[in-house]
Amino acid sequence: MGIVLLGSTGSIGTNTLELCERHGIEVEALVAGRNVALLNEQIARFHPRYVAVAEGTDPRSVNHPDVRVGQAGIKEILEACDAQLVVNALVGYAGLHPTLKALELGKRVALANKESLVIAGSLIDTSRIFAIDSEHFGLWFLQNATPFRKLFITASGGALRDWKIEAMRTATFEEALKHPNWSMGAKITIDSATMTNKLFELLEARWLFGTTDIDAVIERTSQIHALIEFVDGSTTAHIAGVDMKLPIAYALGIDITRPVLPPIDPLEMGAIRFEAIEEARYPIWQIRRHLLEHPHLGVVVNAANEVAIEAFKEGKCGFFEMSDAVLDAYRRFDNVHPETIDEIVKIDEEVRRYVKLKMKK
Amino acid sequence: MGIVLLGSTGSIGTNTLELCERHGIEVEALVAGRNVALLNEQIARFHPRYVAVAEGTDPRSVNHPDVRVGQAGIKEILEACDAQLVVNALVGYAGLHPTLKALELGKRVALANKESLVIAGSLIDTSRIFAIDSEHFGLWFLQNATPFRKLFITASGGALRDWKIEAMRTATFEEALKHPNWSMGAKITIDSATMTNKLFELLEARWLFGTTDIDAVIERTSQIHALIEFVDGSTTAHIAGVDMKLPIAYALGIDITRPVLPPIDPLEMGAIRFEAIEEARYPIWQIRRHLLEHPHLGVVVNAANEVAIEAFKEGKCGFFEMSDAVLDAYRRFDNVHPETIDEIVKIDEEVRRYVKLKMKK
Repeated sequence: MGIVLLGSTGSIGTNTLELCERHGIEVEALVAGRNVALLNEQIARFHPRYVAVAEGTDPRSVNHPDVRVGQAGIKEILEACDAQLVVNALVGYAGLHPTLKALELGKRVALANKESLVIAGSLIDTSRIFAIDSEHFGLWFLQNATPFRKLFITASGGALRDWKIEAMRTATFEEALKHPNWSMGAKITIDSATMTNKLFELLEARWLFGTTDIDAVIERTSQIHALIEFVDGSTTAHIAGVDMKLPIAYALGIDITRPVLPPIDPLEMGAIRFEAIEEARYPIWQIRRHLLEHPHLGVVVNAANEVAIEAFKEGKCGFFEMSDAVLDAYRRFDNVHPETIDEIVKIDEEVRRYVKLKMKK
Repeated sequence: MGIVLLGSTGSIGTNTLELCERHGIEVEALVAGRNVALLNEQIARFHPRYVAVAEGTDPRSVNHPDVRVGQAGIKEILEACDAQLVVNALVGYAGLHPTLKALELGKRVALANKESLVIAGSLIDTSRIFAIDSEHFGLWFLQNATPFRKLFITASGGALRDWKIEAMRTATFEEALKHPNWSMGAKITIDSATMTNKLFELLEARWLFGTTDIDAVIERTSQIHALIEFVDGSTTAHIAGVDMKLPIAYALGIDITRPVLPPIDPLEMGAIRFEAIEEARYPIWQIRRHLLEHPHLGVVVNAANEVAIEAFKEGKCGFFEMSDAVLDAYRRFDNVHPETIDEIVKIDEEVRRYVKLKMKK
């Protein structure tokens, strides 16, 4: 199935032709304005059955045996063409009648001529319109699903994100508890400061979504929680207030056609920036790729981390010594591969015993 | 259907109970650690059939006739309860066995205890898990659809967005053509500088998505194209490179399981900020609400705008005089209500005649 392209020499037109070439889509008709030089090139490349130019352009300057002119010419072409899709990239009011004619003929319209809707929206059947406008495409895309390629979750950076690395060495349990955004229990707040919480979330996502193409980035305001990168080149983001009631409401199966949280006002979001998670500040981060590929080692990381947090809480070790203890245990037990819960329970005990002994020294 | 709540006195637990109260969800069992004072309050409010506390907490301090203790107590409660949903907000390794037990009993698990998956993900049936983690909720949400409440599209701000307003008065056609992000035709680029393009897009969205709850905000990098605010309090955003091939590919029905554009790297996006569209800088913006409520006036705005752009191009009027002319015509013709294409064509001609005459003076 070919297309009729109205406005072939503009930016939408040339992009459309690039895609037609890449995907072998036939171009049954080309309609241009005054850029005859480019139109002639396009005719040589796409061999359309019909061509039209704007009123005032000399049809004899066009290298084609059948050149129509102006609005009347476009109408004739639409009637003559078999193509069921019309890409309307004409500018302004001139695009209105071709849109109406195409719909009248039962064709679908890929509409870059937004003026058609601006001028006569009430008379246009939008069910056969697909808008070529990045914003409306965005709105439409957000309500649709395509295969994803990569997942991103965000991290706040935790309580010590703005500390000098040298100062972090002597940070206390109480200092590491001062989370910038979320009010949470002590254990998860310490895990945020060390980035262990985000490491756990990568692993959680690996099990929930069945992929290892997961990464995390810092977003300091915790207003953007996750992003999905799709195969086509689109990325979408989930934005919501810093309040756990939203995921809980879904988990409880509560009617979410009523408000759970107040919405986010984009104008109140402030500056949003995605930043890399530095391994110098968050040493645990160096094992993320290996752990995603060896997810059965999660039990080791968890056991070592729980013992280390307890030692840090009791003032028996420094902030970075928690990560040191986890990384040491991770290397020590990297050959384990539990396949039953009993094996997991045994490894958990063994790792705890090992880390406790190590940390006493 | 009630729930079993493991970890009722923590931040997830208290949020869960707030939702249970709000939505009349029965709480069949409460499991807490050491915060007996809060647990007793919760017992008085929710009247659970079963209660358990952590090992080491005196069950006699709990105001309930049937108090179980520790992991064994949780196991007994899970077996005794009818509730098919277990909210597991226990901390660390202690959450693993309750997750396994609940799944074994055929229940679903709302899982805030991410350690269950970290430790034993390979042994857990995630099809009966709903993650209570804002990031994983975000990932899940992005792949689902709920009713929307409001749509947002973004604007770059156009060629003169950083000019002093006084200087804009004498801006030339060539200066207004220097769009910061998009390479587009002359007409739409001038429409971007005046914000008329965004006004048109609001109207376009009104016809395409059947709502007048649409607004626009400035996003200077043009990487975020649209946002949707959902009824529940979630907002999602569509992010993609500044390249029209993506909407065109969808419009052409091209196989989008292959890449169309390179993906956006969040780390390369720079600072993103949503800013208000000021009416002082973009006078046309003052009619946006009225126009959305009276969308048949689109033909008036379009006709006046096309005449005004032509005059600006020919140096016959200044930058702001374009908006002046459109606003004047909008007020002059605010009583028209075309219902057929013939009436639209007639009004278009009339408005053009009026604006041409006015601008000559």
